[in-house]
Amino acid sequence: MVKSKTWILKKHFEGFPKESNFELREEVLPELQDGGIDNSYICFCYLFDASLIYHNPFASDVLVEAIYFSVDPYMRSLSKMWLKEGDVQYGTQLIRVLKSKDSAFLEGCHVVADCGWRTHTVTKANSPAGPILTQIVSEWPSDIPMSLALGSLGMPGLTALYGLEEVCKIQPGETVLVSAAAGAVGAMVVNLQVVGSAGGDDKVAYLKELGFDHAFNYKTVPSLEEALEKASPEGYDCYFENVGGPFFTAALKNMKPGGRIAVCGAYNDTAPQMCPYPHHEIITRQLKLEGFMVKRWRHKDEESVKRMLKWKKEGKLKTKEVVTVGFENMPIAFMKMLKGDGLGKAIVKV
Amino acid sequence: MVKSKTWILKKHFEGFPKESNFELREEVLPELQDGGIDNSYICFCYLFDASLIYHNPFASDVLVEAIYFSVDPYMRSLSKMWLKEGDVQYGTQLIRVLKSKDSAFLEGCHVVADCGWRTHTVTKANSPAGPILTQIVSEWPSDIPMSLALGSLGMPGLTALYGLEEVCKIQPGETVLVSAAAGAVGAMVVNLQVVGSAGGDDKVAYLKELGFDHAFNYKTVPSLEEALEKASPEGYDCYFENVGGPFFTAALKNMKPGGRIAVCGAYNDTAPQMCPYPHHEIITRQLKLEGFMVKRWRHKDEESVKRMLKWKKEGKLKTKEVVTVGFENMPIAFMKMLKGDGLGKAIVKV
Repeated sequence: MVKSKTWILKKHFEGFPKESNFELREEVLPELQDGGIDNSYICFCYLFDASLIYHNPFASDVLVEAIYFSVDPYMRSLSKMWLKEGDVQYGTQLIRVLKSKDSAFLEGCHVVADCGWRTHTVTKANSPAGPILTQIVSEWPSDIPMSLALGSLGMPGLTALYGLEEVCKIQPGETVLVSAAAGAVGAMVVNLQVVGSAGGDDKVAYLKELGFDHAFNYKTVPSLEEALEKASPEGYDCYFENVGGPFFTAALKNMKPGGRIAVCGAYNDTAPQMCPYPHHEIITRQLKLEGFMVKRWRHKDEESVKRMLKWKKEGKLKTKEVVTVGFENMPIAFMKMLKGDGLGKAIVKV
Repeated sequence: MVKSKTWILKKHFEGFPKESNFELREEVLPELQDGGIDNSYICFCYLFDASLIYHNPFASDVLVEAIYFSVDPYMRSLSKMWLKEGDVQYGTQLIRVLKSKDSAFLEGCHVVADCGWRTHTVTKANSPAGPILTQIVSEWPSDIPMSLALGSLGMPGLTALYGLEEVCKIQPGETVLVSAAAGAVGAMVVNLQVVGSAGGDDKVAYLKELGFDHAFNYKTVPSLEEALEKASPEGYDCYFENVGGPFFTAALKNMKPGGRIAVCGAYNDTAPQMCPYPHHEIITRQLKLEGFMVKRWRHKDEESVKRMLKWKKEGKLKTKEVVTVGFENMPIAFMKMLKGDGLGKAIVKV
């Protein structure tokens, strides 16, 4: 009999998340079931965005154990859309397969999956109702921490890569502005001519260490618009948008004609914010804005992770993590990350 | 000695334009000067957006007389950016060349130019300081009114064409939403599967006559969002954005995933309006927005006008004009157009 600790979303977030939004519970997991048809032989597939995800309604069960959890800003905004009160809080984890009745997921293999905030899970591998299990690339080097599969070498890293390459279609020598630049995604926008904005002098120092040409503390500059202009008087070719709010409005006014904006995030609002309609700048500067979600390029993920792993091995990728230890500290780690405390990708180690 | 009547921008617009913003004056025009180098032989060129505009600083003078004026929404918003009080109001006209010292612009030829609200103008043909003179295509059929060179077969028509073809990259069978659909640009978005929104039941009837599949009066529907959903429950592939304001916010919520939005205009505000930051819809629906100005494709204009002329000759293009007679009625025609009175392109006949 395996027990799992779970963090339940007790009350939907109103404003900034509080500890009282969550409740820690324990549940007994069911025994593993044999689905009858092996996952490695028969798969159903359907179109999910631009990529094919293989689902097997007859898959057999696996029992998985979380090693690392990712806490990310989108978990705040999506929980109201996707969860009802009493559900397990949504989230992503790096897991080890403890027991398996599915020959495609062998015991001991490592997988990334959105199993929510729970230490143990019994699930079918990629059944239509369950989470998608993605094995980490088989060539993962032993000297690279596997937790990076949740950060620089996982979803946030891929988000940065696709935002720059697929959405902005960045060219050598172009000037890129990135907001929330010390965040998990922002910090990956590196080795490029970048002006980074972050909310703290320690973060600014961190950004300069990462290789940013300019970085400023948006909380202390007297005018965002002027700070952006000072950092790049010629304007910006691309803007990697992670924040929304007044920064967006100021960034629009500093774009070069024909500038491209990758709209990636705008999550850290305590209340819905209002802005002037952005049409004037969008029209007169003939800007392109494109919203995107990382899963659009899922078919490229394996090859992309391998590219990034190579850069990491070559020392070209500087990665930093803020690791909170203990599953019982999930809500605290989540709130710290939302407040912008800590430099680097927020991770919880079970 | 030639005299010109001119409408001066006496006071910048505060809120909705009023007659008192303008003042009618008369001025004596200078004699025509010989620039020394013929416009047809030597040209300077420089990059203007994506197209080459030929300028000749040594060009000789031409005297032109306005036949038709265009009154358009952008004249309101641009006047504060481009004009100071006491300047001639900005605007476009179809003119006839009365006298010419420039062999590239023969007496009697017809030209479109941004000479402002003045009946007569002495200018150099395409000198760096003056307006750009664009001759209407030489094949202009005698049975097609030349005033259409300011409307369906001119800038507004080209705006509709480029917005659909170049920005939205519209495909057969796609659903297009257009706001201000009874306006000069909107009404050109025709012969396509289009849902049109306009501000009046007479306009809705006009749109249905133009061939729109659905049209509704945005002033009388109880909910914009619901009206948009009802008209196309599957959502919209493309949105041709002409208005800004709450319509924009409602449209975002009705776009299909991956939808494209051509951001063309947002001019008819009496005060700067605020909207919720549009990030959530842009990201989750992975929308593309692109601002554009018609001049980006100037190099295609001649070929595009010829295509549209062909459609007009074949009866595929339904065009409608609201013609106000008399130069002294320019401000009245301008305000009527801004208020949305009248069905079709607003034109003033001198």
